[in-house]
Amino acid sequence: MAHNVSELRQDIVSGEWVTIATGRAKRPQEFSILKRKKFAQPKFSCPFEALLEKDLIFLLKKQSEQKLSNKKGWFVQVIKNKFPAFAEGNCRTLNKEGLYTKMEGAGNHEVVVTRDHDRSFAKFTQEESELVVQAYVERVLKLKENDCISYIFIFHNHGPESGATIAHPHSQIIALPVISPDVQRSLNGSNDYFNKYKRCVHCDVIRFEMQDKTRLVYENEHFVALCPFASKTAFEMRIFPKKHSPQFENINTEEMGSVGDALQKSLAKLYKGLKDPSYNFFIHTSPLIRYADYSHYHWHIEILPKTAIWAGFEIGTGIEISTIMPESAAKFLKSIKV
Amino acid sequence: MAHNVSELRQDIVSGEWVTIATGRAKRPQEFSILKRKKFAQPKFSCPFEALLEKDLIFLLKKQSEQKLSNKKGWFVQVIKNKFPAFAEGNCRTLNKEGLYTKMEGAGNHEVVVTRDHDRSFAKFTQEESELVVQAYVERVLKLKENDCISYIFIFHNHGPESGATIAHPHSQIIALPVISPDVQRSLNGSNDYFNKYKRCVHCDVIRFEMQDKTRLVYENEHFVALCPFASKTAFEMRIFPKKHSPQFENINTEEMGSVGDALQKSLAKLYKGLKDPSYNFFIHTSPLIRYADYSHYHWHIEILPKTAIWAGFEIGTGIEISTIMPESAAKFLKSIKV
Repeated sequence: MAHNVSELRQDIVSGEWVTIATGRAKRPQEFSILKRKKFAQPKFSCPFEALLEKDLIFLLKKQSEQKLSNKKGWFVQVIKNKFPAFAEGNCRTLNKEGLYTKMEGAGNHEVVVTRDHDRSFAKFTQEESELVVQAYVERVLKLKENDCISYIFIFHNHGPESGATIAHPHSQIIALPVISPDVQRSLNGSNDYFNKYKRCVHCDVIRFEMQDKTRLVYENEHFVALCPFASKTAFEMRIFPKKHSPQFENINTEEMGSVGDALQKSLAKLYKGLKDPSYNFFIHTSPLIRYADYSHYHWHIEILPKTAIWAGFEIGTGIEISTIMPESAAKFLKSIKV
Repeated sequence: MAHNVSELRQDIVSGEWVTIATGRAKRPQEFSILKRKKFAQPKFSCPFEALLEKDLIFLLKKQSEQKLSNKKGWFVQVIKNKFPAFAEGNCRTLNKEGLYTKMEGAGNHEVVVTRDHDRSFAKFTQEESELVVQAYVERVLKLKENDCISYIFIFHNHGPESGATIAHPHSQIIALPVISPDVQRSLNGSNDYFNKYKRCVHCDVIRFEMQDKTRLVYENEHFVALCPFASKTAFEMRIFPKKHSPQFENINTEEMGSVGDALQKSLAKLYKGLKDPSYNFFIHTSPLIRYADYSHYHWHIEILPKTAIWAGFEIGTGIEISTIMPESAAKFLKSIKV
């Protein structure tokens, strides 16, 4: 490859191209010295410090604190979002406005808060991490009873550059009346591959990556974490269940522990290796539309660290320019002891 | 519409949904008091202050400065990018790596610099703005002679939140061996609409918006600027040629003046109305692939102000949450005298 020429890599699911700019490449360590914003939100004024009984949907306690009162013993509380982006409304009623089509943002918007102001996933025990996963699962199982909802999107923003506005660690669960474009593209890619090869694309990727090993970051009994071949951002990671499984919420208790561990370890490696960068993670799983068949799909978690700002090129083309080879990122993250 | 329920609006071209969170809505003026980063790049140490003769591709002068030397008289210089994301390489040769496909980032990467360190589009005269458009056109006409290139992407990042890393006003021209996903989706939407209705979707939008008027921001003889019905960001604007035209680079001299004026006025309204927010703008035009028919497409400019950070929801779903109605944004921008 000629000097300074970047590499275009095709995402095997979506068919879209990402750019790895090797001419601008940095060593892994260089990503840890980027200037970082800091949250100036002291613990004493944090709204998430106490149990928010008024908005509480449910809470979970650690094994050792089961006997404490709710106020003292909670580790995870799931609450209603005070400023919901989606709330009760007319369900999937399309309205015309001249040429255009619109509908109400009918759905649901909840927040999953963990106990400690200064302890995020990177510092959780395995039990704590598992409790968060359990909270996600329980809410999805409840929310999917609502026929209005086409998709439940679970995500977590960490750090000021991630778009988080509240410092205290929390995730969000948004129930939507439509399937979002990114998820739709992932579903379409998975469906096309299945029609062509009669196999799950993600199963093929997992099998290949577990043999090849160059992009593996972490592995336990049921899950594997890796840097994708066509990484959209530097140090991007994906966590897959090794067993084919279309729906996140169908995992059993043992798998909850296993994915909690894989998520915690991946984020701890990021924290320690790159000195606490901002990141977003989210779950891509099958939609809830009952008449469609999503058995070809393979749910997973995507972790996208924020080491650069999207500029005009990325925004206008949808092609991201990453400045580290996914293989170097994986090697580095794998080497970080946590 | 119920209180606090957001509105989902469907993009008529891509079919994708955007969210307008009316429950979180702000008045237009509130967007001008958001905390802004500032560039700390003094003029005396700026690499773009002088004519960069070594990397120069060509330059343009103002009418009144035609007789000055190049060093003194340049207003626009087009130069090679020192750290190109795309450069000379193997042209469209697909390489396999196990399961995956990759290719070299063969193409070209140039920078369009204007004269003054502290004067961006918002402060340009019409002649200055037209000279920038002329530089874009001339480069595209030259670059498209290269058979390797599938797409030429022209964009401009303004302000620290836009991802710009150099304060001095400049645009970038990237020539790519692939069609980028965002452009491909816009092309597909345009093509589908044409097959269904035998009309250009953008022509229909322009006709409707010029009658409806609620989303119009600015209009001159050949161009119209509006806030799109399904705006992805607050104060998003698009500038369309009124006449159907697939290729940006086919505009004539009169149209160069007209689009330069529309672009300058739109950005001046943003600057004055919202106190110089960061923004990205880029041109969506037809690809250069010779065997394909893009006559259904209608080139345009998209201006995306940066008034919020993309968080996990936007990144993971591709659904953006805007906090102002496009109609309010348009009314506000239209009222700003420039």
